[in-house]
Amino acid sequence: MRIALDAMGGDNAPTVPVRGGVEALQHGEGDFELLLVGDEAAIERELRKLAVPRERLRIVPAYETIRMSDPPVESVRRMQDSSIVRGLRLQESGEADAFISAGSTGAILAASMLILGTLPGTDRPAIGALLPTAASHPTLMLDGGANVDCRPQQLEQFAHLGHIYVRDIEGRAQPRVGLLSIGKEAEKGDELTVEAHRLLKRSRLNFIGNVEGRDIISGSCDVIVCDGFTGNVVLKLYESVASHLAQLLSRAVASSELDVDLHAMCRVLDYAEYGGAPLLGVNGVTIICHGDSPPRAIRHAVRVAIRSVESNMVEHLKRELAGIASGRS
Amino acid sequence: MRIALDAMGGDNAPTVPVRGGVEALQHGEGDFELLLVGDEAAIERELRKLAVPRERLRIVPAYETIRMSDPPVESVRRMQDSSIVRGLRLQESGEADAFISAGSTGAILAASMLILGTLPGTDRPAIGALLPTAASHPTLMLDGGANVDCRPQQLEQFAHLGHIYVRDIEGRAQPRVGLLSIGKEAEKGDELTVEAHRLLKRSRLNFIGNVEGRDIISGSCDVIVCDGFTGNVVLKLYESVASHLAQLLSRAVASSELDVDLHAMCRVLDYAEYGGAPLLGVNGVTIICHGDSPPRAIRHAVRVAIRSVESNMVEHLKRELAGIASGRS
Repeated sequence: MRIALDAMGGDNAPTVPVRGGVEALQHGEGDFELLLVGDEAAIERELRKLAVPRERLRIVPAYETIRMSDPPVESVRRMQDSSIVRGLRLQESGEADAFISAGSTGAILAASMLILGTLPGTDRPAIGALLPTAASHPTLMLDGGANVDCRPQQLEQFAHLGHIYVRDIEGRAQPRVGLLSIGKEAEKGDELTVEAHRLLKRSRLNFIGNVEGRDIISGSCDVIVCDGFTGNVVLKLYESVASHLAQLLSRAVASSELDVDLHAMCRVLDYAEYGGAPLLGVNGVTIICHGDSPPRAIRHAVRVAIRSVESNMVEHLKRELAGIASGRS
Repeated sequence: MRIALDAMGGDNAPTVPVRGGVEALQHGEGDFELLLVGDEAAIERELRKLAVPRERLRIVPAYETIRMSDPPVESVRRMQDSSIVRGLRLQESGEADAFISAGSTGAILAASMLILGTLPGTDRPAIGALLPTAASHPTLMLDGGANVDCRPQQLEQFAHLGHIYVRDIEGRAQPRVGLLSIGKEAEKGDELTVEAHRLLKRSRLNFIGNVEGRDIISGSCDVIVCDGFTGNVVLKLYESVASHLAQLLSRAVASSELDVDLHAMCRVLDYAEYGGAPLLGVNGVTIICHGDSPPRAIRHAVRVAIRSVESNMVEHLKRELAGIASGRS
C-alpha cells in the first residue's frame, strides 16, 4: 500500500508533514510505503535531520504550492505542478492508494472532486470531522464545511457516508446516526432538518433521531449529520475550546501539582488525537488535516488512510450508495 | 421598580426561583420590589424556610403551570391563569417593569409576543445569550433559538438589538458586532450570511465582519449575530462543555491539591455566571432562564432585569429601531 502525503501543506511545512509521516513509518502504523509529495530539496533537508532509513519512503517532486489564501478551484486548474494536484493524481494513475494534506481545505476539496470524481449517488462529498467525546470513542460529524447550503437529500447521503465510514474504519457494527437540530422532537428544527428527519426515519440506518448541541460532547451517537455551515461553526468552536483550556491548564499546572486526571480532561477535547478528516463521497481516499496540525495528527491521519484502504471503504461506499440510489428510482 | 418572577418555572420550582429571587433582594442587586408569581401556598412554604422579611416582596397568585412539554402557543392562549401569562400581564397593566422565568422558552416567547407585542422595525424577537469568554466580558450571541429560518434583514435587526443591549446594559460604548460564518471573507458563508454581511457593512454599526466558531470563546467581539438554529446549537454545545468539564475537574480535584487558577478555568465556561437570556425586540423586559438554573443564575437575571429597566433599554430600542426602519423607506 502506498500513502501519498503532501509535504508542502500546512503552517509548518515541510517540517511537520515530513516528521509526522516518518513517525507513522517508525511507529508501525502499518505496512505501507510513504510518498512525500513536494519540493525535493526541502524534503531532503528535513529527512536528513531525522536520519531515517529510506527503503519505505520515496519523494514525488512537485514544485508549486497552493496557499491558504489562493482561490481554490482556479488554483487547482492552473497549478498542475502543485503538491495537492500531483499528490491526488497518484491515485488516478494507480501509484498511490490515499492522499493526505494539511494544505488549503478548499483546494483539496476542489482537486479531489476534479481528479478522483464524486461517487454515484452522492451529490457532493462531505468533510467528516472526528470529534473527541466524553465517551470512549469519537463521534463523526459531517459535513464539517464542504457544503454550506444543503438539501435534505444531501443530509441523508451524509448519513450513509458516515454510517459506512464508522462501520468500516472505527469498527462499530450498527453506528447510531443522529441529526443535529434544536430539539429532540421530529418537528423541531429548520426546514432542512425537518425534511431530513423524515428521510432518515424511513432509511435503513440506525437513526436515533434529532440530537442537540449538548449531545455532541456526550458521545451519545456515532455519526452526527448536519449542513456544512453548522458543522464548520461547531468544529471550530470545539477546537478553540480545547486549545483555550489547554492554555489555561498549562498556566494552572505551572503553579500546582499536576494530577493525571487533568490530562484526561484535556484529552477529551484534543482534536489532534484523531487528526485528519476524511473527505467522504469521492472516488478515492483523501484525508484533510488542519493547517496547524502537529506531527502526531499527521501520524494519526496516516493510520486513518491505511484503515480506509485496508477495509475497502471506497468499494463499500460505491456499492451501498448505488444500492440506495437505485432503490429509490 | 417591580420585578415579576415566575415562581413556578424551571426544573426545581418553586424552590430555586424563590431562593434566587430572595438572594437578589438580600444581596442588594438594586432597589426593587419582587413579585413572586405562582401558587400562593407553595411559595409561602418556600419563604418560610428562608425566614425572609416581607416588605419588598409580594405574591401574585397564578394557579396553572405550563410544562416544558406543553405546546407553547396553544398553552399560552388556553392557560390564562398560568404563571407565565399572569407574570407578563403585570407589565401590560403597569404593575411590573420586567418578567423573569425559567419555564418553557417557547411559552415565554409566545406569551411575550402576544402580551407585550413586538417592537416596530423588528420582525420577530431574538433570544440574546450571554456567553462567557476568555476575555474580561461576555459576548452576547443572538439569536439563541427563537427563529430557525431567518432572512438577512432579521440578522441585521438582531445586530441592532444586540448593539443597544450591550451598550445600555453592559456599558460598552461602541460594541463590536460580528457575523457568525465559516470564514473571515465577506463572500464566505451561506446565502443568508453573505447577504447579511452586505446589509451590516452599510449599517452604522461597529461591524467587524465575519467571525468563526473559534472567535466565540476568545471574546473578540461584543455581539455575535446568527440565525436561531446555529445559535441554539452553539449555545447548547457551549453549556455542555462547561458542565462536562466541571464534572471532570471535580473528579480531578478530589485527588489533588486544588489550585485557584482551575476555578478561573471553569468560570470561563460557566453559563450561570451570566444567567438569564434577554428576549430582545419585544415591547417590555423579559428574561429567560435555563430550566436547570441554580439560584445564582436567577439572582443574576434579576440584576439584568433591573439594569434593563434603569437604562430605559426598551425606549432606546423603540427609538433607534424606528429610526433605522424609517431611514430605509
